[in-house]
Amino acid sequence: MSERLLDELVDALRCLPGVGRKSAQRMVWHLLERDREGGQNLAGVLKRVMTEVGHCQLCRNFSMQPICSTCSDESRDASIVCVVETPADVMAVEQSGSFRGRYFLTMSNLSPIDGIGPDEIGADALVRLCQGGVTEVILALDSTVEGEATSHFLTESLSQTGVSVSRIAHGVPMGGTLEYIDGGTLFHAISGRKPV
Amino acid sequence: MSERLLDELVDALRCLPGVGRKSAQRMVWHLLERDREGGQNLAGVLKRVMTEVGHCQLCRNFSMQPICSTCSDESRDASIVCVVETPADVMAVEQSGSFRGRYFLTMSNLSPIDGIGPDEIGADALVRLCQGGVTEVILALDSTVEGEATSHFLTESLSQTGVSVSRIAHGVPMGGTLEYIDGGTLFHAISGRKPV
Repeated sequence: MSERLLDELVDALRCLPGVGRKSAQRMVWHLLERDREGGQNLAGVLKRVMTEVGHCQLCRNFSMQPICSTCSDESRDASIVCVVETPADVMAVEQSGSFRGRYFLTMSNLSPIDGIGPDEIGADALVRLCQGGVTEVILALDSTVEGEATSHFLTESLSQTGVSVSRIAHGVPMGGTLEYIDGGTLFHAISGRKPV
Repeated sequence: MSERLLDELVDALRCLPGVGRKSAQRMVWHLLERDREGGQNLAGVLKRVMTEVGHCQLCRNFSMQPICSTCSDESRDASIVCVVETPADVMAVEQSGSFRGRYFLTMSNLSPIDGIGPDEIGADALVRLCQGGVTEVILALDSTVEGEATSHFLTESLSQTGVSVSRIAHGVPMGGTLEYIDGGTLFHAISGRKPV
């Protein structure tokens, strides 16, 4: 494409994760040739989101208000907090229909090498939250090395507040065939066995 | 994500080719958490492109002016026209450094089933262009069934204008090992052989 503005758009599209030069060119071509309306709509919505969406002061989820709709929902149990990493995780827990308490988002696991320490994951904010009427914290972080380290750190931080801290169960997923489950998961499943 | 505006952005991002719900969510999350500046820049550039970029009246390539920079470049040979499908093809030919004439873009191959006929590929515009000082037309369309059909149709349309019509050579690509070349390509390579 000969126009400098189109090159600019190709470069701008590359800020999206998973989009390289070739796919960006394909996107520009598709929008210009087939879907200008969609492109205009995207530009408008994107601008609004980038300027208007901030973080909830309580749970740190994305929100356009200082307190998000989940945290201000009076019908939810404010005494129990589920700690997850991302907004996508909140959605996953919500869709499971198994939880009607509040959330707290770390937004990332601890990763000192990337400059992500206790402040970045909001450890202090979680402790403050737990000093106001919270009785139980459920840690639902990823079951990876980084997730485990973050869970461990948060458990330590919360020990002073007196709330009971639990972790979601690890084991064989529903519909999982034992034969294809990895050893680590089986170890957790057996050591976490429950009387029938 | 709990906010309706974020869902709107996820939906809007899906107008991009190759982007589904999950990747759109990942994009929103990435932009909000890691690259708000990039997102704002993208929104601005995208809006400008969607409103300001049209088509060159001569070659039909994307352009912000009625006549694009390639067509208005006096140093290029206006008597020879290379017919390609997309702006990406123009870039490919330009990068090969083998051509200093003008271009004409069909923007699509003939595809009656999708409603793409002679008008959509600009057959008349090409004929009109060739009536004004053009002596040679090089067809550089894809070597697929649709590309062949389009080439054939354009050759027919141009027969009345008296310009000489040629097609780019098909054969073994540079660096290609004979063993791995398909039969159709080899057939073209052998029937198009040249005296050394």
